[in-house]
Amino acid sequence: MLKDEYRLNAYKSAISRNKPLFKDKIVLDIGAGTGILSIFCAKAGARKVFAVEANLKMAEICQKVIDDNNLKRIIKVYQGEIENIKLPQKVDIIISEWMGHYLFHEGMIDSVLHARKYLKDGGKMFPETCHIYASMCELPDQYDFWKDVHGVDMSAVGEAYRKSSCDEPHIQLVDKKSLLCDPNVICSINMYDIDPDSLKEICADNLAVMKRNGSIQGVCIWFSVDFPNGISSERIYLSTSPYQNPTHWKQTVIVLPREVVVEKSEPILYKLIFSKMAKRVYQISVQFSDPSDIAHPITCNCFYTKCIVSKTHLNGLQQI
Amino acid sequence: MLKDEYRLNAYKSAISRNKPLFKDKIVLDIGAGTGILSIFCAKAGARKVFAVEANLKMAEICQKVIDDNNLKRIIKVYQGEIENIKLPQKVDIIISEWMGHYLFHEGMIDSVLHARKYLKDGGKMFPETCHIYASMCELPDQYDFWKDVHGVDMSAVGEAYRKSSCDEPHIQLVDKKSLLCDPNVICSINMYDIDPDSLKEICADNLAVMKRNGSIQGVCIWFSVDFPNGISSERIYLSTSPYQNPTHWKQTVIVLPREVVVEKSEPILYKLIFSKMAKRVYQISVQFSDPSDIAHPITCNCFYTKCIVSKTHLNGLQQI
Repeated sequence: MLKDEYRLNAYKSAISRNKPLFKDKIVLDIGAGTGILSIFCAKAGARKVFAVEANLKMAEICQKVIDDNNLKRIIKVYQGEIENIKLPQKVDIIISEWMGHYLFHEGMIDSVLHARKYLKDGGKMFPETCHIYASMCELPDQYDFWKDVHGVDMSAVGEAYRKSSCDEPHIQLVDKKSLLCDPNVICSINMYDIDPDSLKEICADNLAVMKRNGSIQGVCIWFSVDFPNGISSERIYLSTSPYQNPTHWKQTVIVLPREVVVEKSEPILYKLIFSKMAKRVYQISVQFSDPSDIAHPITCNCFYTKCIVSKTHLNGLQQI
Repeated sequence: MLKDEYRLNAYKSAISRNKPLFKDKIVLDIGAGTGILSIFCAKAGARKVFAVEANLKMAEICQKVIDDNNLKRIIKVYQGEIENIKLPQKVDIIISEWMGHYLFHEGMIDSVLHARKYLKDGGKMFPETCHIYASMCELPDQYDFWKDVHGVDMSAVGEAYRKSSCDEPHIQLVDKKSLLCDPNVICSINMYDIDPDSLKEICADNLAVMKRNGSIQGVCIWFSVDFPNGISSERIYLSTSPYQNPTHWKQTVIVLPREVVVEKSEPILYKLIFSKMAKRVYQISVQFSDPSDIAHPITCNCFYTKCIVSKTHLNGLQQI
């Protein structure tokens, strides 16, 4: 957490820009780690912070940091899993940096959702909403690179590498220039009312329209989380998109074993499936289908005659 | 190998700048991997290359790359460990990218030294010499960083982290500005005549004179290898020093649990011990001693009266 500046700053600014929300309030920090978020909350004026940390050694370090910063009157460390701990009272705010790669991988969302039982009516969650996005992309490192390595054709290495690696998601940075289309929102989560059971399988058909000619070599997945912005009209969020500063989460990539050549305005229909295999472990798979199998939106930019006609008609209507 | 440009370029230039050495010669490539070095050797004019690769899958990929590049007449792939393979004849050149972190960690030096039995009299080894270096250094990421993280004193985290991590070497990049002294050469290896048994324990007293005031927070270790430079007067080498371009080997750091404040010209006596624990696995330890316990070199730059007097006397002699 501490060495990912962008991530830390997002949380810090979510707290400092919501100071009135924290003033004299009771806060629960789940997975407190070194205690940095609990300390930010205390400095923002919280009356009490419950810092829950499962790891024994980390909880000891957390306690030491809190002592060193003279905050033991405000922050109380609980060593254990939130599911097995009894807090003395309900809280006004739950804060947690619980997100894993592609939001779910080794993430602690289940624990945070469980902890909602401690949240007072009207209490706030930091973050309060989450979104997962996906976009078709090119992967020059996994494809083009191998075609000519210092004058040697190494395609066979690339092919073998892709074959062995397409079974599991890759954590890597993707250049925004490698994205072939606007992202689809795969899943939106409202932390206040989401049912944990609904996260066992996430699956939706997505229509993507290519913005340029290229080759689909993989699917790039990322997430963003939004914090309450009670006193500000500006969105306070943390995004792990290729358009933002890189974070330790990077992006998650499903590498396709073989590339698919596409052209500008071509529609691609795909299903991205997140299946929960065990606590904190998901399997991601991608399936491509015939894009004429679903109804395209009225404002679709794809090159299907029907969409072009509908768009032209719509433009005509707007001009009237 | 392929994505570490500096490393690949060093080998490529060692081969291309020694073309006459390779012309019509028999070459053995140990740990051939994707076959890139074997292909460079074939392109440099080798008559025959034996590409030995232990990993079955990798050997298959290697064979495919060689076929794709139309070099199967020249390069023959042997799947297996060099110790268990019988080559049909002796070779003029042994080439291998066998080095691991701090030269030895997971490196294949034993296999390469074993393969010397195939080297003709007067044959060449690529690389032919190796050196390990060490320097005292500061480690801002492990020390100073924790003193103030966004206004929070996180020293306790840094301390715990160093305590848990000082048992094993860290692979990380060290800024050359963090080095406190000129490096000591810890070990020099001549690949033609080194006895593998002599590498079971490497241990030497080293005297380092600080070049500036600072805090010794760790010991930074790196290595370099030199290639034959038969036709060139210029050194052809690959160095993993902080003064060079970063490689995937980075540097190896022994983190000290507590820093030692030092001043400019202060002599530090230390023993660095590499103990072989198992095949390809070493333990590194560092011991500090009283620098007055050994004789300093005549040209020592340290602030000991004896060394200052001796140096002044020497300067006087030079002026006469």
